[in-house]
Amino acid sequence: MPPIDRCDLSLVPSAMPADLSRAVVVAIDVLRATTTIACALQSGARSIIPCAEPADAIAVRERMRDYHVLLGGERGSVRIPGFDIDNSPLSCTREAVAGKVLAFTTTNGTRTLRRAIQAGAREILCAAFVNLDAVAAKFTEIDASTVLLACAGDEGAIALEDLLLAGALVERLRAKGIAGDFDDGAKAAALAYRGASGDLQAAIASGKHAQALVHAGFADDVAFAAQLDAVSVVPVLRGEEIRVW
Amino acid sequence: MPPIDRCDLSLVPSAMPADLSRAVVVAIDVLRATTTIACALQSGARSIIPCAEPADAIAVRERMRDYHVLLGGERGSVRIPGFDIDNSPLSCTREAVAGKVLAFTTTNGTRTLRRAIQAGAREILCAAFVNLDAVAAKFTEIDASTVLLACAGDEGAIALEDLLLAGALVERLRAKGIAGDFDDGAKAAALAYRGASGDLQAAIASGKHAQALVHAGFADDVAFAAQLDAVSVVPVLRGEEIRVW
Repeated sequence: MPPIDRCDLSLVPSAMPADLSRAVVVAIDVLRATTTIACALQSGARSIIPCAEPADAIAVRERMRDYHVLLGGERGSVRIPGFDIDNSPLSCTREAVAGKVLAFTTTNGTRTLRRAIQAGAREILCAAFVNLDAVAAKFTEIDASTVLLACAGDEGAIALEDLLLAGALVERLRAKGIAGDFDDGAKAAALAYRGASGDLQAAIASGKHAQALVHAGFADDVAFAAQLDAVSVVPVLRGEEIRVW
Repeated sequence: MPPIDRCDLSLVPSAMPADLSRAVVVAIDVLRATTTIACALQSGARSIIPCAEPADAIAVRERMRDYHVLLGGERGSVRIPGFDIDNSPLSCTREAVAGKVLAFTTTNGTRTLRRAIQAGAREILCAAFVNLDAVAAKFTEIDASTVLLACAGDEGAIALEDLLLAGALVERLRAKGIAGDFDDGAKAAALAYRGASGDLQAAIASGKHAQALVHAGFADDVAFAAQLDAVSVVPVLRGEEIRVW
């Protein structure tokens, strides 16, 4: 099993290094982009195309007329006017997404993915609590000497649930015997996950973003996003599309 | 007991808000500036003057000829050539510092203090594990509706020991019944401290800065800085000087 020479944590997109050409980037936006991306692929979506703006998603649909393209995403946590689905993992049923391309734009998650693309990341995969073990297991197969755990955060601030997922992944990697040189941020995240493990659901629910989502009527999404290993896919970026690895 | 309306965490100096005029800033540089400042005052130093550069410290000594001014601090963890003492809390014995003014320059800690000054912080106090309870107790006496836990970090990166101290302070404030709206970073730090509490010394020693200090021969400093409540002073900035509050 190849060791990880270096595994760093980035808590907000602006803290991501400008050059990630040697790095496997784990994009983390638990509430809700990476949770929803994992669920869409688990439900049989053909691919997800991350788009910076709603207009970009509409342009993808124009360009890909040979495919059934769904427009998805959120602004201010709710569905964008004229779009087919919102940013809820629970909207990604097999009936809604199977066989379809999802042109997807969200506030924080998309920003993180696009920064990783701009920085030339060697691989970009998407992690959430729902596919934690699948992502950790992938690291037993691939050559990932340099890893960046890239949290989306919340409008430039630390998001508790993203930090906890980064820590959970560090703990899972260690449990699988993957040796690694984790930076102080990654070590701190692992300790926070350990500190939260008595009641992970409550810890996630105590975060600012979770509280805002509950207030906006998305309590079921928060509860779902806190479920460990509910799906088995590892979403990975290939060209402009996120597919099942 | 006045509640804290808002308590935010800043993990590196560059993340500190530009305007702190309403905030009580808790400067945190466990390894070693704030630990050493607390120890110097506990040992009877008259005051500590944080200086950006070694030349600034020398200028302080020139200017304050009526006092016995010691030059203290580090570059690359070691004593600056021509300076009287280094940045070790164990150097701050009563024999060395009692009655004296310490013109003090360190890499990360001083930068944090100076950013807080530039941002017009309402109060600036210094916290470390060695004076954790004294700092927490101070919050039962003062009006601190807005608090910033300002970690010095390590050359622009997260420092594990600073994050853990921030979390320890959040936990102590809660234990003293101080209600507060802690941001996600502060909540994460509290969880990390909880996760580390089984062996706090080992957690601190696992950090990058602690390992570098041990490598440089300062293992005793790391062990000392991890001691809870070894001193009883709360250092606070008054004008350009840090004194006992």
